[in-house]
Amino acid sequence: MISSMAASHAIWPKEDDAIFGLAAKAQQAVKKHGKDKVINSTLGALMDDNGDLICMKTVYDELKSMPNANLAAYALVAGQPDFLEAVQEACFREFKPDAFIKAVATPGGTGSVRHTIFNYTNPGDTVLVSDWYWKPYVTISEEFGRKVSHYKLFNDKNEFNIESFKENFETLLNKQKRLVAIINSPAQNPTGYSLSDEEWQQVIDIMKENAKNQDNRIILLIDVAYIDFAGKGNERRKFFKLFSNLPENILVVVGYSLSKGYTMYGMRLGAAIGISSNKDIAEEFYYSCAHSNRANWSNCNRGAMEVMARICKDPDKFKAYEEEKDLYKTMLQKRAEAFVKASEEVGLEILPYRDGFFISIPCDNAKEISDKLMEENLFLIPLKKGLRFAVCAVAEDKCRIAPAMIKKVMDSLK
Amino acid sequence: MISSMAASHAIWPKEDDAIFGLAAKAQQAVKKHGKDKVINSTLGALMDDNGDLICMKTVYDELKSMPNANLAAYALVAGQPDFLEAVQEACFREFKPDAFIKAVATPGGTGSVRHTIFNYTNPGDTVLVSDWYWKPYVTISEEFGRKVSHYKLFNDKNEFNIESFKENFETLLNKQKRLVAIINSPAQNPTGYSLSDEEWQQVIDIMKENAKNQDNRIILLIDVAYIDFAGKGNERRKFFKLFSNLPENILVVVGYSLSKGYTMYGMRLGAAIGISSNKDIAEEFYYSCAHSNRANWSNCNRGAMEVMARICKDPDKFKAYEEEKDLYKTMLQKRAEAFVKASEEVGLEILPYRDGFFISIPCDNAKEISDKLMEENLFLIPLKKGLRFAVCAVAEDKCRIAPAMIKKVMDSLK
Repeated sequence: MISSMAASHAIWPKEDDAIFGLAAKAQQAVKKHGKDKVINSTLGALMDDNGDLICMKTVYDELKSMPNANLAAYALVAGQPDFLEAVQEACFREFKPDAFIKAVATPGGTGSVRHTIFNYTNPGDTVLVSDWYWKPYVTISEEFGRKVSHYKLFNDKNEFNIESFKENFETLLNKQKRLVAIINSPAQNPTGYSLSDEEWQQVIDIMKENAKNQDNRIILLIDVAYIDFAGKGNERRKFFKLFSNLPENILVVVGYSLSKGYTMYGMRLGAAIGISSNKDIAEEFYYSCAHSNRANWSNCNRGAMEVMARICKDPDKFKAYEEEKDLYKTMLQKRAEAFVKASEEVGLEILPYRDGFFISIPCDNAKEISDKLMEENLFLIPLKKGLRFAVCAVAEDKCRIAPAMIKKVMDSLK
Repeated sequence: MISSMAASHAIWPKEDDAIFGLAAKAQQAVKKHGKDKVINSTLGALMDDNGDLICMKTVYDELKSMPNANLAAYALVAGQPDFLEAVQEACFREFKPDAFIKAVATPGGTGSVRHTIFNYTNPGDTVLVSDWYWKPYVTISEEFGRKVSHYKLFNDKNEFNIESFKENFETLLNKQKRLVAIINSPAQNPTGYSLSDEEWQQVIDIMKENAKNQDNRIILLIDVAYIDFAGKGNERRKFFKLFSNLPENILVVVGYSLSKGYTMYGMRLGAAIGISSNKDIAEEFYYSCAHSNRANWSNCNRGAMEVMARICKDPDKFKAYEEEKDLYKTMLQKRAEAFVKASEEVGLEILPYRDGFFISIPCDNAKEISDKLMEENLFLIPLKKGLRFAVCAVAEDKCRIAPAMIKKVMDSLK
């Protein structure tokens, strides 16, 4: 009787995804009590006020009117050239950095995080991530035998904790001489925080100071999965310009995703976009990621690439797409405003929200509170350091009443 | 001036995919000389006699008539339950082994190869692959710091070289105590060979003999990417039954792909299907692959899963799908017969073809011959040990004339 066949690095707890488990419970509650009686704030996808997934018409009309061969054919390993051009325009808009830039298609933003961690760290290295974070950063690091260290995302004024970032960044870099640091902004998951342009400048100043040592290799991974729903107009893209003309031993990788901005979650498309002052470094990035594409999934969803390229290349289609998206962006912003305002009114402490799909409530006993709230048919996600409420999935009127429900349960458990 | 930012294991030659480069040259020739004058036998995708990609109507009608939400929503990390059930039925049909079986969705067959190599070998290990092989087996192994050793696919009677397989298998297993051995059958890429059921039995006997040592961990990866176009009816699936009741230290992984059988190349869907006599080992496989899914691409193409599950669950739809596919299977078999017969007639030596998309011609100077054939507008793929002709992509009349063209150029270069 043997107990295992997998190599030791590939044996994991037999656990299913917790978020999907909670989402299933919320669905059961909807069936039992009706939609009106349930607040399902579990999944990170944009829902309409009726709780149905929003699928952008401009995106899916384009997809369904395309010749079948555009969906069926293999894409090139690194991605279709017109997509790789379009995705850079869609990401940077008028704030494209002055640098050598190369993009590679990946399945969602996940693939770009995976490529950056796998290709730019050594086994045993530690990756730097904030203490409020998207859990798969750790899953990815663990998969490849990398560790994760956390800097504090906020200082006691609820601003970006630049001191904690600096201290952890320099400690790891001095030890490893090579560091992948991840910043998820704008619209961080799970807090909704976005670094201000001044805070970005501080981050760059720290990187530049440490780049003076030519032995250092600094890789900044910026996860912008939620950028298309952040800020007014393109204000949350201004910071990209700051990545112009950086020292050559700083590589910036932008992890872009089509999941949210194009409501293409299930189609699995994104891009890893490398930014360097050195042409060879940008090309090294491209060929490194292309090799990883070939060795992990061969190539990405061709139809999704075609849809995005067609929309972005055609001014009329792009305008229609932007108008549709802006409607949903406004809807999202109103929901978040309602939640933030109601929290203030009832005295519920929340983390500083700026943009995006989620708002977080700091607490020590998240699981206990979440369980109790489930009894009242409010479903949210318990994290290590607090609760995540998905405003993306909850109608404005429910966003207005949820904070009082949460506050009441928290107080009852004190 | 620094020259590199990537970690040393992630620096690769700055080379683009050779096959797509040759395919592009063939396209240029078509533009210049017209379709009639060009034989484009480069890409491994089924084309009609006009050189256009075949996209199965039963598949794409289903896709395009589906509600947008079924395409847009995230799939579960391991795959949608109905897909994971359907894919096992589609793969095994009436020859499902008597064993514990768990499936996980992957992007194409590539993802299943990736998972098996990464999760079932240790860094530095050697994977066993035949000497005629699909190149990405090596790309995947290299990506993860694994080596590749080759057994001879054919003996001097042009049968499966069981002696060479046994010798290499036992040498590696004795050294490593853990071995992933890959067999790409039926319809091997690039030779079109399919192991007979007797040859499969010999492979199993070798595995069983070596499984007597309880310290050994034997993992057999069967790449069946082309199975849906192999043999008459389901005869090429009979061998699956042989994987019933194996010793517990033999894990069989079937890498199934929807790329060919459903003409969904660009949609990136397949499955890794683990077969074990031990329930815990099957579950370990599932959770290991699910962890790898989360850590590499999060989840797979939801729409592609829905299409397959809907077709397989509905007897009428499945019948229509099978009828459509069988038309193309017959078309492919006629093309291959024409190529094989013409080869005999002109005395062109080819490797033993049984099924599938490709036929191979052994030779020492493949690149030279390929270059020369390009001048005559015949485009095929030069490999280390010969030439690969894609009958999947070439009309029957052209399959009939190609062998003479190849023979003539080969003779002229002797």
